[in-house]
Amino acid sequence: MSSSAPPATGPVSDVPTPVTATARRAKEAAAELAPLPRTARDAALLAVADALVARTGEIVAANGEDVARARAAGIPDSLVDRLTLTAERLAAIAADVRKVVGLPDPVGEVVRGSTLPNGLELRQVRVPLGVIGIIYEARPNVTVDAAALCLKSGNAVLLRGSSSAYASNTALVGVLRDAIAGAGLPADAVQLVPGESRDSVRELMRARGLVDVLIPRGGASLIRTVVEESTVPVIETGVGNCHVYVDEGADLGMAVDILVNSKAQRPSVCNSAETVLVHAGVADAFLPRALAALREAGVTVHGDEAWQRAGAGAEDSAGVEPATEEDWGTEYLSYDIAAAVVPSLDAAVAHIRQWSSGHTEAIVTRDAAAARRFTALVDSTAVIVNASTRFTDGGEFGFGAEIGISTQKLHARGPMGLPELTSTKYVVTGDGHTRS
Amino acid sequence: MSSSAPPATGPVSDVPTPVTATARRAKEAAAELAPLPRTARDAALLAVADALVARTGEIVAANGEDVARARAAGIPDSLVDRLTLTAERLAAIAADVRKVVGLPDPVGEVVRGSTLPNGLELRQVRVPLGVIGIIYEARPNVTVDAAALCLKSGNAVLLRGSSSAYASNTALVGVLRDAIAGAGLPADAVQLVPGESRDSVRELMRARGLVDVLIPRGGASLIRTVVEESTVPVIETGVGNCHVYVDEGADLGMAVDILVNSKAQRPSVCNSAETVLVHAGVADAFLPRALAALREAGVTVHGDEAWQRAGAGAEDSAGVEPATEEDWGTEYLSYDIAAAVVPSLDAAVAHIRQWSSGHTEAIVTRDAAAARRFTALVDSTAVIVNASTRFTDGGEFGFGAEIGISTQKLHARGPMGLPELTSTKYVVTGDGHTRS
Repeated sequence: MSSSAPPATGPVSDVPTPVTATARRAKEAAAELAPLPRTARDAALLAVADALVARTGEIVAANGEDVARARAAGIPDSLVDRLTLTAERLAAIAADVRKVVGLPDPVGEVVRGSTLPNGLELRQVRVPLGVIGIIYEARPNVTVDAAALCLKSGNAVLLRGSSSAYASNTALVGVLRDAIAGAGLPADAVQLVPGESRDSVRELMRARGLVDVLIPRGGASLIRTVVEESTVPVIETGVGNCHVYVDEGADLGMAVDILVNSKAQRPSVCNSAETVLVHAGVADAFLPRALAALREAGVTVHGDEAWQRAGAGAEDSAGVEPATEEDWGTEYLSYDIAAAVVPSLDAAVAHIRQWSSGHTEAIVTRDAAAARRFTALVDSTAVIVNASTRFTDGGEFGFGAEIGISTQKLHARGPMGLPELTSTKYVVTGDGHTRS
Repeated sequence: MSSSAPPATGPVSDVPTPVTATARRAKEAAAELAPLPRTARDAALLAVADALVARTGEIVAANGEDVARARAAGIPDSLVDRLTLTAERLAAIAADVRKVVGLPDPVGEVVRGSTLPNGLELRQVRVPLGVIGIIYEARPNVTVDAAALCLKSGNAVLLRGSSSAYASNTALVGVLRDAIAGAGLPADAVQLVPGESRDSVRELMRARGLVDVLIPRGGASLIRTVVEESTVPVIETGVGNCHVYVDEGADLGMAVDILVNSKAQRPSVCNSAETVLVHAGVADAFLPRALAALREAGVTVHGDEAWQRAGAGAEDSAGVEPATEEDWGTEYLSYDIAAAVVPSLDAAVAHIRQWSSGHTEAIVTRDAAAARRFTALVDSTAVIVNASTRFTDGGEFGFGAEIGISTQKLHARGPMGLPELTSTKYVVTGDGHTRS
């Protein structure tokens, strides 16, 4: 009945590699960070904001290498734009860091507490998670955002960005490390994961005991890989196959506005709608109006037979693409939407249950009972009544910052702010208490 | 930039097996359970309690098969005792189920809420996790306890007990299913995972998208396997390499009592102490007293050189076993303790950081600054000042029930009660809100 070291929480492999050596330094930095007061963390973040502005030239120059490489490789302009840093953009990133400084400190918050019948004093206190690994794609602003949120919440961070932004990230992390070290924090609280190959991601995913959580931010295939291969606990983020359901009791004008906003206000993000479901009782009235509005917004509809009929009957001849089963499961992230007519609210719920990624679903209805039933039966991160799916967002929810939107059920669900980057511990105080 | 089904949250394998078919039924049952009100869940649990008593004969008979098999296999008496069910024990298990009925309902609790500046009403509401898988060892009472806590919190449960308790668990789950079905709940909310082989555990660990969380309850090797191989999110429980640190400022009499209680009050459980660390400044005074008290409690000390010297100088000749490095990492779960003298509080913290499993560490001190420093620097589930490590327990903490003690940092940390068996979702209500 006895067990020997290493415990289940210990590192899976003891063979040191550049990645595990980095993670080990992060763990040591996290132990130094954890007991520091808010003032120390805030001062370091203000130093970061100042340094990003002061060292703009050097960062922009490094970014220029990445941009030139991307252009030479024929990367589309929209992606090159995402990769590009300018003095103006760096100033905005620095301003965001200053905003993070002003947010409430989650560390040390007493989540619950009581004096037990035997007089023991029990407090459950928020503490940093420790070491947070972020695996992300091309945008170098994520490097600073993620580091700022992790530092504010007392965590060390391991950053694994895209190889296409390697020069930019190296420059940014250099600036961050110098700034926080100058303010008295351990420089190793912010580190780039060494190596540009997939192997370094794999090692990071196996560094259980050194890394406390991994947050993948990016496309579905990246997230899937991390979820399947990581022994480090993962917070799954951001895949959004979101639905708008137009109920029999909907205000149809409102439904058109919400549908168009949910789909087309910014199609490339995870909280945009990918499927619209319409109650059969309002299909004849709603479909032509919806088609006209979606067409005006530049959206292609991939519809079931009812939508195809409505498209064929429309005054112009743009029509509706026939939907295949694949459309119900697709996160387009583009000006496309899947569309079906359903016989009832419960059929809409069943469709959502089968196909949704569990991010955000909206109902449009004036019927209180329908709204209540929809919110009770739909088990997604956010269930929205009479508003756009686009509101599922840390900024819109008033959290002041967001490191991602969790679509899993453990630990954090929905937009993750600073409290979601913490754990808790129990502090118990007695005066010689023993158990009998 | 588009991605197709299945989403990252979907099942890893679509090849149906008996285990995935079971999990799929559990998922459907969970969807039925989630919107049911407390009254329905409570009525089902009361029916369970009644049925356990009414069908005692049948359960005890099935248990007799397991017991006979265990005896024939030469299993030690203490383990056979843990496996054994009697009418009296079943009555106690039924009484525990009735206690669970009386606990506050976590489902539907509004965790936070606000009206946003634009008038959107935001509520974060507790919801069941969905399907909870429990992998556990020989005690058949866990079958009923775990099912009761899962049902109370609105979850479906998949039970994977030890093959040595298969007949008992089959009988118990039959009784549970009949009782909840009779009360109007889906019978598939409680299921045994089919198959007695390791393969069925492996399939359960890969059923991501069908199972929302796995909780392994048992020894370190079981937990380690689940943590390493599961793609379903895991809550790590119960490995406890707990420390008692006797500070320079300790009341030595109190320290002896706390040490003996922490080690010997019930050595087989995860919150018993496995190592004692003593500040060098009180070693001469404390070690002889501690050795005498530990010896009287039947505890063997595995000590460093200072403890060995103290043992050699003791009046009787029982002595101290020399500690090897392995002792620092060992969870004995027996009347054994590792023992070292450290030069400072910070050295004790460093030892704990290196060797602890992160469960519970206690400091004994009269020095407020030392207590504050120890609680700030030690990052374990519970940090205890001047009391026994044995208090880290859901019952002692006043939670009324406990499904295990999480030693990980995500989602739940420490004793897990009913709230830890829930997730949350955001419900957002507007009147036509769109984003601009």
